[in-house]
Amino acid sequence: MAARGVHLDHEQRRDWLRLIRTENVGPRSFRGLVNRFGGAATALDALPALARRGGGLIQPRIPTIDEAEAEMAALARLDGRFIAIGEPEYPAPLREIDDAPPLLAVRGRVELLNRPTVGIVGSRDASGAGRTMTARLARGLGEAGWMVASGLARGIDTSAHEASLPTGTIAVIAGGHDKPYPRENIALMQRIAEIGVVLTEMPMGWEPRARDFPRRNRLVSGISLGVVVVEAAERSGSLITARLANEQGRLVFAVPGSPLDPRSGGANGLIKQGASLITGVEDILEALTPLLGRSMPLALEEREHDASAMADPTEDTRSRVLMLLGPAPLPVDDIVVMSGASVSDVQILLLELELAGRLERHSGGRVSML
Amino acid sequence: MAARGVHLDHEQRRDWLRLIRTENVGPRSFRGLVNRFGGAATALDALPALARRGGGLIQPRIPTIDEAEAEMAALARLDGRFIAIGEPEYPAPLREIDDAPPLLAVRGRVELLNRPTVGIVGSRDASGAGRTMTARLARGLGEAGWMVASGLARGIDTSAHEASLPTGTIAVIAGGHDKPYPRENIALMQRIAEIGVVLTEMPMGWEPRARDFPRRNRLVSGISLGVVVVEAAERSGSLITARLANEQGRLVFAVPGSPLDPRSGGANGLIKQGASLITGVEDILEALTPLLGRSMPLALEEREHDASAMADPTEDTRSRVLMLLGPAPLPVDDIVVMSGASVSDVQILLLELELAGRLERHSGGRVSML
Repeated sequence: MAARGVHLDHEQRRDWLRLIRTENVGPRSFRGLVNRFGGAATALDALPALARRGGGLIQPRIPTIDEAEAEMAALARLDGRFIAIGEPEYPAPLREIDDAPPLLAVRGRVELLNRPTVGIVGSRDASGAGRTMTARLARGLGEAGWMVASGLARGIDTSAHEASLPTGTIAVIAGGHDKPYPRENIALMQRIAEIGVVLTEMPMGWEPRARDFPRRNRLVSGISLGVVVVEAAERSGSLITARLANEQGRLVFAVPGSPLDPRSGGANGLIKQGASLITGVEDILEALTPLLGRSMPLALEEREHDASAMADPTEDTRSRVLMLLGPAPLPVDDIVVMSGASVSDVQILLLELELAGRLERHSGGRVSML
Repeated sequence: MAARGVHLDHEQRRDWLRLIRTENVGPRSFRGLVNRFGGAATALDALPALARRGGGLIQPRIPTIDEAEAEMAALARLDGRFIAIGEPEYPAPLREIDDAPPLLAVRGRVELLNRPTVGIVGSRDASGAGRTMTARLARGLGEAGWMVASGLARGIDTSAHEASLPTGTIAVIAGGHDKPYPRENIALMQRIAEIGVVLTEMPMGWEPRARDFPRRNRLVSGISLGVVVVEAAERSGSLITARLANEQGRLVFAVPGSPLDPRSGGANGLIKQGASLITGVEDILEALTPLLGRSMPLALEEREHDASAMADPTEDTRSRVLMLLGPAPLPVDDIVVMSGASVSDVQILLLELELAGRLERHSGGRVSML
C-alpha cells in the first residue's frame, strides 16, 4: 500500500514501470488496473486474460523484468530516478489530475517538486517585449518563493527557465531524458538538471513527436497551481496548455498585448474567455497565494486486493455497454447511465477494450471505439 | 407640457436657458425645480424666495430675458441651436443619466444624435499603434451604422473623429461653441460642425477650464451605449470617462496593450476591473447590438402645476434635515431615512440650500454643506 509518505520498494517500482510501459496502458487504465487488482504485480498477471476478454487478437506487449531494470539503470546513469504517484516527492497538484502519470522520470533537485509552482508558456517566436515580460514574471515569482515550470521550448519557455534558474525552475520535456529537444537548449537542459528539475513521463530513448507536446503540456499545468500565457498566437500550443490548465482547475493568467500584434492574439483571446489579465507578478501572487496549503487529494494508491468487489461483469452487462460504444466519443458517465451497469463494471469493460487496443480515450472523460 | 415628440416654444426655451444659466442651478436642481413648480417660468418666479429660505445672503443671479435671447442669437449665428431634454432630437441615452443637461447647444446634423452611438476615448499622447487601432474601430463602427462620439482632444479623440467623419461623428466639447479647444483641432471642429455634430452644455463665451473636462466626459458616455478606451495611462481623463460610463450603466470596452507600455496601463487596469477586452469592432458590435431598441425612460418633463403637492416643509422638518448636513458628503437617501422627512420635503430643502450657494452635490447622490 503506497500512500503519502510511503515509498515503493524496488520490485514494486519495477512492476509499476512494466505496467505503465505496457502497450495500450495509459495513466487512466493504469489507475483502473491498480485500483481493481490492488497492485501492479497482480494487474500484470491479470492483463492477458483481460485483453483476451476485450477482444484483442494480439496480446499487449508487457516489458520484461530485465527491460524495466535496464530503463531504471539508464535513468540512474543520468542521475535520474522514477517517482511514483503517492510518494512524497510526487508533485501534489499533479496527483489531482485525471490522467496523472503513475511514474515520473526526474533529474535534478527533486525536492523542488513540492514547492508551489507556476507554469509560464508562450510563443516560440516571441518578441523582445514578450521575453522581457517573461523574464520579469519568472524572476518575480522566484523571488516570492515560487517555482517556475515550462516546456524548454525556444522563445518564452527559454526566457522563463533562464530567469528562474537561480530560484528554481522545472523543465517538463516531451521525450526521454536522453533525447533532449530542441537542440539549442541542450546546455540549458543540462544546467536545469543540475540546479533545477527536468522531468518527463516518456521512456528513455523516446524521440519526441508532434503529438507528444500537447500531452506534455498537461504536465506543465498539472504540476502548477496556475499557468501564465505570455505571448501566443491563436491556435498555438500555449493555448492547448491553457485549455488543459482550465480543465484541471488551474488558474489561467494571460499577458495582454496590442491587437495589432498577432503574437498577442492567443493571450487576448484567453482573457476574452475568462482568463485573468495580468500586468505584473503581483497579479499572479494575489490570485495564487490564497490557494497555498489547500490540501490535494490522493488520486491513486496501491491497496489490499478486495476480491469480493472484483466480480466480473455479466455477459448481459458486457453486451449492453458494447452496444453503446462507437466511433463518436461518448462520456463514460453517459455510458454508465445509459447501460444501467455499475461504474466499476463499466470501468473494467473499458479497461479490457483498451488493453485489447480497441478503445481510445479523449479529453473530458470521453471514450470511443477504434 | 413637454414630452417625447413635443417641442418647447421660443419663450419656454428661453426660460429654460435662463433657469439653467442661473447661479447655483445645475442639472439636478433644474430638474428638481421644474418638477416641483411645473415649469421653468414658475420656477424662475419662485427662485428668490427659495434662496432666501435656504439662508442665502445674496440672491442668485438670474440671467435677464435679453441675456438669454443674446445667447440664443449668438448660437444661431454659428448655425447652432438649443435642444431641450424631452424634445425628440435630444439623445435618448443621455436622458437616462442622473445629471443630464436640460439644454444642449448643438451645431451640425442634429438628426445624427438619435442614431446609436459609441464613445471612443484615450490618451492625448497616443502611440501610432493606438491611433491605428482607433481609426480601425471608428471606421468599423461607422460602416456598421454607429455614430462615434469623442472629446475633440489630441491623440485618440482626433483619430476617432477623423475616421468616423464620413459616417457620423459627434464632438462633445468642454467650453462654449465660440471657444474651440484645442487650437490645433479648430479646423476639424469646423468640419464636424458641418457634416457631424458638435455639442456642449456650456454657455457661449465659456473658456474651458481643467474641471470642465471631467464634467464634459459624462456627456461623451451619456450619449453613448458603450465607451471604448483605446490607450490611457493610469489616472487619466479617459479613466474618468470609463468610470462615469460604468456609473451610467454603459458598457465599457478597453483595448489591451503590452504591460511594458505605460500608455496601456489604464486600459489594462479597466479590464482587470471588469471592462470587456476588445480586439476588433466585432467585439463591440456583438455586445452592443442586443441593446438597440431598448426604450429609454424620460427623466424630466414640464407638467401641470399641482399646488396640492407643493406644501412647504414644516420648520420642524427643516431643522431635522439641516441638523444632518455637514461638510462630509451624505447620500440623500440616508438623509430621508434619518430625518424621517418625505422625499419631496428633503428635495425642496436641498434645493433651497443649493440655490443659496450653501450645498454641494457629489457623485453617487451625495450632498454636503459648504
